[in-house]
This record gives sequence, structure tokens and C-alpha cells, in this order.
Amino acid sequence: MPAPALDLLTIGNAIVDVLARTDERFLVEHGLHKGAMQLIDEERAESLFSAMGTVSVVSGGSAANTAVGAAALGAKVGFVGKVREDELGRLFAHDLRSVGVAFETAPAREGPATARSFILVTPDGERTMNTYLGACQALGPDDIDPEAVRSARMVYLEGYLWDPPAAKEAFRKAAELAHAAGNRVARTLSDAFCVDRYRAEFRELMRDGTLDVVFANIHELKSLYETADEDSALAALREERVLGIVTRSADGALIVERSGTQAVPASPVEAVVDTTGAGDLFAAGFLAGLAHGLPSRDCARLGGLAAAEVIGHLGARPQADLAGLAREAGFSLR
Amino acid sequence: MPAPALDLLTIGNAIVDVLARTDERFLVEHGLHKGAMQLIDEERAESLFSAMGTVSVVSGGSAANTAVGAAALGAKVGFVGKVREDELGRLFAHDLRSVGVAFETAPAREGPATARSFILVTPDGERTMNTYLGACQALGPDDIDPEAVRSARMVYLEGYLWDPPAAKEAFRKAAELAHAAGNRVARTLSDAFCVDRYRAEFRELMRDGTLDVVFANIHELKSLYETADEDSALAALREERVLGIVTRSADGALIVERSGTQAVPASPVEAVVDTTGAGDLFAAGFLAGLAHGLPSRDCARLGGLAAAEVIGHLGARPQADLAGLAREAGFSLR
Repeated sequence: MPAPALDLLTIGNAIVDVLARTDERFLVEHGLHKGAMQLIDEERAESLFSAMGTVSVVSGGSAANTAVGAAALGAKVGFVGKVREDELGRLFAHDLRSVGVAFETAPAREGPATARSFILVTPDGERTMNTYLGACQALGPDDIDPEAVRSARMVYLEGYLWDPPAAKEAFRKAAELAHAAGNRVARTLSDAFCVDRYRAEFRELMRDGTLDVVFANIHELKSLYETADEDSALAALREERVLGIVTRSADGALIVERSGTQAVPASPVEAVVDTTGAGDLFAAGFLAGLAHGLPSRDCARLGGLAAAEVIGHLGARPQADLAGLAREAGFSLR
Repeated sequence: MPAPALDLLTIGNAIVDVLARTDERFLVEHGLHKGAMQLIDEERAESLFSAMGTVSVVSGGSAANTAVGAAALGAKVGFVGKVREDELGRLFAHDLRSVGVAFETAPAREGPATARSFILVTPDGERTMNTYLGACQALGPDDIDPEAVRSARMVYLEGYLWDPPAAKEAFRKAAELAHAAGNRVARTLSDAFCVDRYRAEFRELMRDGTLDVVFANIHELKSLYETADEDSALAALREERVLGIVTRSADGALIVERSGTQAVPASPVEAVVDTTGAGDLFAAGFLAGLAHGLPSRDCARLGGLAAAEVIGHLGARPQADLAGLAREAGFSLR
């Protein structure tokens, strides 16, 4: 039986977010690097959890957030990622399926628990993430269904997939299958520290034709090209054979191609409550637009609209009717 | 070793809330009684969860919410309730301890999972609760620590404790110990349907001297006295030998005593997002005030202030600095 045709298949770490509000002092006391994602082991997870204030538990995971955002905008979306068969794994699967994202990856029946990210949100809305990878470490090439990949116009992968040992093989397998079927491969650099861990490999992926579209923020780009200068980083990106999308928080986004660079302003945000998921949702809007054949500029506007919604509340999944907001802004994605 | 002196010890079902936004149609389709709490079995829990949209998981439980609210206002508080040794049980315990509530009840090592309530929040902010009691059914008199009860100026119990089989024995034991130590016993009627299930027993508790303070909303009172008339219900309450506190949503609260009835207006609320926990937090403020010797009228104002905060966001636990809000309103509870 052929898999249903998808606009977008995203592959990433299947993570449940454990969010708490905190102050700057807590970050300093616990040696946390504000705004970044750090990997933590089980022991550190326990001690951080004990120290955190009252929590909310919601589904997360960068590429999973992107899948949900694109589905909420009306795209046909699938997600690949590994949970454990446990309470948090069921929560994660429920939240994908509740918005119509196809999620068929078999859960791990043994081994570490479903991954969780302890996310500390400071009063300025910035989030600092501490991720215990757990069951994500069991994701491998066998979890990539060739039919699903071939049926998707676009495959999107998160940079964080370089952290669990076998996931990058899953990534490469998916990229090869997608290209063989004539589909496009997109990716986010995920995090400046993640880029720092795998710089050479990340550069290679951009040069060997594995990637067609790359999302990055300016910190990630500077890390990738080892420069403190924004213009040098952007110039280096312009030389790659990819469509580069650079997010710049309140300054909007840049669409960077060999032919030139376009700036697209950010959507207005009333109050920044929690930036968790902002980049993920920008990618969701951009990719939903791309899958529907919109010009890059409109894709970036759609991305900005989705990012603005998710910044306005706690958690990385949309709470408002994104398709409705898009229609109000003049977009019609079915 | 003697237990530390407490202002307030609350006893209730230890429940994790699974919240989702929904529309009125969903309630009708699933035969749910808007605004009420229904008990559900595991099978029904599974089917409701599958049908619900994207969820947030946060700690709940009526008397536990009250404990957290009172602690947030500066009172010394303990909680008694039964979780299972599982992920959601750990989440529940964490959230109590993170705000300084003493929680020493031994978790169940076997049997049903930690209780959860599937709460559907409609666009008007009203919540409809569907509770799977799970591990709460294991709470019994052995879980009541006589020292802790004797050390607390006030013991507060939820009406929902009549649902699990052995919990009412725990309730009676705690009430007897409290009175023997010269402390006061307060209780909420919890829910009109709960009153309907145990009407005779609830009336008896008010008449046999078990209760000193009773919280109720007007629906619960009408159910208790089997009348459709608000004035008749209030007149009947006035005849009881208790301090009666009647919450009336946006109309504020009534303090009902033999000597007369006082009305206290509600605190202003900008937008009603989710009424989950409104009654629990009203009780929290009132009891924190009472434990600090404030007059009833000020206790009710403090209750209104705490309730107004929790209505303004999703979930039944305070997100703002309640003690700070109370200070701004002229209250100083240490």
C-alpha cells in the first residue's frame, strides 16, 4: 500500500518539554548558558528538575514543533522520531496526531525513557534548554520508511539529530531517498553550540549537495563560518548552493541566495512570553508556503506569522488557529 | 521528632490535570456536563484522551491547588494525598515541594497509576472535568500523620474525598484529631454532582460538629438543600453551626453566619481564560487569611485576589507572585 502523499516529512528528536518560569539568578547558579540547548544526563536531569519551580509539561522537539505548525497551516505532514512506550511518549504521540500529523515511528519497548527538555523561561521570554535525549538515542535508519520519504515533496531535518549516535544515518538515508525521488531536503542548524560540535560535517552537508534549503539564525551562522562578523557570515552563506533562510528575531528574516539577499520584516508581537519554538514555527510557515509553491518572500511572511503566534504564550506548539491567521493575512493554503 | 507547626494542612485527591482547549460541540458529542466533574474509568479516559486536542499537563487536585495557593501567599502548608510511584506522581510531588508545601504521603508502589483529570476548557473559560481516580483510591486513615494534623491551625478537606472508598475514613480521622487538638476543620462541597452523590452524609457533617468552616458555590448549596431557590439555600446555610463561605463567580462571595450575611465583591479579572482552580484558590486566600487572624471580610478579599490570578491563565496553580499581589492590595502575611 503506498504511503499517502505528504507536503512535508520532518525528522527529529521526539521530546517532551518541561517548562518553568525562572529568574536570571537561577541560570547563573546552575551554570546554564542562557538561550542555548545543553545535553544533560539522567543525574543532571534529576537535580535540575528538583531545583525548578512549578512546571508545565507539553510536547516539544524542534522538528516535531515544525511538523505541527505546518499541519496547523493546512499542509499534509508526517513526523519521524523515537519515543519510549511510556506516559510521556503517549502524550507526545497524542499531540502530533491530534493536529493530523502522521506519526508511525515504532516506540522503543525498552531502554531509556521518552526524552525530555527542561526549559527555563526568564522574564524576558528567552528560553534555556537542558535536554535528556533518552529514547531518541534509539532512532536509526530502520525508522526511515522509504515510501513515506518518497511521497513527501520536502523532507526537513533538525541539526540536533547529530547528537544521538545512529540518527545521522537515518538523516542521510532520508536525504538520499528524497533526492532520488526528485524531492527537496531542508535542514536547520538548530543551535550555535550544536554547530560547534559538528562544524565540519555541517559544512560538508551544505557543499556535497545533501541540502537544498538551510535555516539558521545569525549566531549559528557565525559559529558555522567561525566569524564574529555578521556580514562575513552572510557572505559565506551566499556562496553555498542552497536557499538560505536567516532568522533574526525582532529584525525579521533574510532570504539568502547566490542571486542576492532579501530582507523580510518580522510580524508584530504584543508581548514576548516564551521564545520556545519561535525558530521551529518560522520553519513551519516557510516550508508550508514552499510546499504550496509560494514565492520565498511570502514563505518568510508565513513563517513570521507562525513564529509570532508561538512567542505570545508558554510552549512551542500553536494555540491559535494558524490557518485562520494566515487567511486573515491573505494566504490560502487549502 | 515533632512535625513543624503548620498554618494549614489540606487533604485531597492527588491529581494531574491534562488540559485542552475545546469547543461546545465537543462537549455535546461526548456527552459531557459542562462545568461539572465526572468520574471516569480507564477505558473512558483512553477514549477521551484520543479525542482531545493538544494538551498541557500540569499538577492539579482541588485541595492540592489550595495548598499551593496558601503557600504562595506566605502560609506554612502541608498536603496529604496519594500518588503512584510514576512519572506523573513525581511531577505532582515536585510541584508541591517547589513552592514549599510539605508533602510526606508515601506514594503507592503498585496498583493504578497517578490520577489524572482530563479538563476541557471552552472559549468562555469554563472547565469540564473528567477524572480517573487511579492511585487516589489507595488513600486511607494510615496516611494521616497525627502529629502533622495536631500541629496545623486548620485542616481543610475536599468533598471529592467521598469518592475513593477509604478516603472518607482518613477525613474523619483527621477531623477528630484536629478538634481534639483545639484546631479548626474546613471543607469544600466541591461540586453539585458530588453533593448529589453524598447529600445525607454532607448534611450530617455540618450538623454533628465535624466542620467549622464550609466553602460552597451556589449550585452546590442548592443541591445540598434540594432547592432551586438561592435565598432558601442561603437561609438554610445560615442555620448551620458553621462559618459558610459562598462563592458566586463574578458576583464575589457571601460570608454566611447565624449573625448575618456579608457580601464581598469579586476582584477584577481582565479576561477569563480558564476557571480551573478558581474555587480552590479562593479557599487558599481565605484560609491563609484566617490562619493569620484576619477578619472574614479581608479573608474573602484575599480569596478573591488569588482566584482572579488563576482565572487569567490556563491551569489551576498560580503563575504570578501571589504574596506580592497581596502586599500591593495592603495585606501582609509575613
